[in-house]
Amino acid sequence: MSRKGSKARAEKKGSKAGADVSLRELLRVPGGKAVDLASYDAREIPAGPGDKEAGRAAMTELADPLADLQERLWAASTAGDRRRILLVLQGMDTSGKGGTVKHVIGLFNPSGCRIHAFKAPTPKELEHPFLWRVKKALPQAGELGIFDRSHYEDVLIARVRELVPTAEIERRYDEINRFEKALADDGVTVVKCFLHISYEEQRDRLLKRLDRPDKHWKFNVSDIDERALWPAYQRAYEIALERCSTRHAPWYLVPADRKWYRNWAVSRLLLEHLSELDPRYPKADFDVAEARRRLLEE
Amino acid sequence: MSRKGSKARAEKKGSKAGADVSLRELLRVPGGKAVDLASYDAREIPAGPGDKEAGRAAMTELADPLADLQERLWAASTAGDRRRILLVLQGMDTSGKGGTVKHVIGLFNPSGCRIHAFKAPTPKELEHPFLWRVKKALPQAGELGIFDRSHYEDVLIARVRELVPTAEIERRYDEINRFEKALADDGVTVVKCFLHISYEEQRDRLLKRLDRPDKHWKFNVSDIDERALWPAYQRAYEIALERCSTRHAPWYLVPADRKWYRNWAVSRLLLEHLSELDPRYPKADFDVAEARRRLLEE
Repeated sequence: MSRKGSKARAEKKGSKAGADVSLRELLRVPGGKAVDLASYDAREIPAGPGDKEAGRAAMTELADPLADLQERLWAASTAGDRRRILLVLQGMDTSGKGGTVKHVIGLFNPSGCRIHAFKAPTPKELEHPFLWRVKKALPQAGELGIFDRSHYEDVLIARVRELVPTAEIERRYDEINRFEKALADDGVTVVKCFLHISYEEQRDRLLKRLDRPDKHWKFNVSDIDERALWPAYQRAYEIALERCSTRHAPWYLVPADRKWYRNWAVSRLLLEHLSELDPRYPKADFDVAEARRRLLEE
Repeated sequence: MSRKGSKARAEKKGSKAGADVSLRELLRVPGGKAVDLASYDAREIPAGPGDKEAGRAAMTELADPLADLQERLWAASTAGDRRRILLVLQGMDTSGKGGTVKHVIGLFNPSGCRIHAFKAPTPKELEHPFLWRVKKALPQAGELGIFDRSHYEDVLIARVRELVPTAEIERRYDEINRFEKALADDGVTVVKCFLHISYEEQRDRLLKRLDRPDKHWKFNVSDIDERALWPAYQRAYEIALERCSTRHAPWYLVPADRKWYRNWAVSRLLLEHLSELDPRYPKADFDVAEARRRLLEE
């Protein structure tokens, strides 16, 4: 397997030696250029902790700053700041979308999180344009929204399974870009993570589910059939990454064969974005001394 | 201050000496009987850990069993089990509803939690019966739903502030009981917690918010005005607890002046209810050996 994508990352990182590495820069998919997923090593560690133990320690270190930034984002919203985050998680079956929500979003105050898992569209949803159900699940001001799958399914499975005419699929990329641009203009920081696993890792994970009776409920025999379509899905992802990694809503290619690295990387991406937003606690809009006096004199 | 309510608890507990204490039994409000909130000590420790350090350790111990039970509840739902939990949190301002969500619900997998914070009704919500917006926020099969405030506001602030005619308020208690009975019949375990704080503790908490500029955003001058209505609110709670603590949806009176105790008690109540539900992982509905063979032979 070629390592072009991973190699390019190594060079990018090398050129910044000594500087504090930006995971956003390292993992960002350059839009408009052909993407070759096979050239990215799903077990890669482009930056950050080098092994599982260090990864867990690094996660623990992220917990406090993330919680602090989330609270500030929420607090700012109470004073009219409309900014919010939308984390989009995509990846093949078993790539760890659910595990990421559990471990990464588990670091946050659940009150400020709005999680939506997109399943196959219902008959009612199919009566509407494909973005209809997506718009209803968006985070509100101050919130961290999380999409476990998303509108990208409408150019992924829809493309592979030919659920709609090709011309319609082609239109959708542009529609997605316009939609995400409008979100960005409205104060939404869109963080799209493609959890990149290898074909072999998927087999190992499926086998592990079979080994544990308490994981059988997660198993679908159709997951095995879907593996025959692996190349078609990878191609559909490549096209989506190429056409929809934009300046206002970039895609991040997260190596996900190592779960601990995936968790750290997504957490770190959120930290970098939240730090850039730098939300502030609003100033008191009342007389603090007077309020204190009233309480003490009751 | 009288300690009748707390005393009754102590006697109940005493009569079970040696047996594993059921917090559900201890904290449950006996329905149909007059409730005197002043007779309950908000700093009480009716059972469980005796101090802050022990409380934190006890919380940590609850994390794994709660996560396990939640996963089983979710897994069971994938095989048609419709059961779910609805935690209702009520209490005066600063009683710690938000803190409970953060610390207790933070122990769970956020994917399976559906949190809804009820604010003052919008004009659109006011056009509908008071339970309309509540029904839209209910947990789905396998989920843990959390209401931060709830339909009880419609017999609390609505009663104190005389937002609707008295006859309408009177009707609502019965309507709430019928609604909750229907939920129970449909597989919803309704766990209603009244976070009981003292008048003095509320003042201390409001003063602390004033001391910290990063907490000013949580402060409303109107909170001070509301304190003048404390007795009326306590009375409204007493009536709601008396009339709506039913066999199918009991109220629990949680001493909440100590935050660590409140967190432990709510977690423990959830554990007791989830343990009783005892959800099971569904059995595989496919040929496990055949699936393994196919994966290995690919």
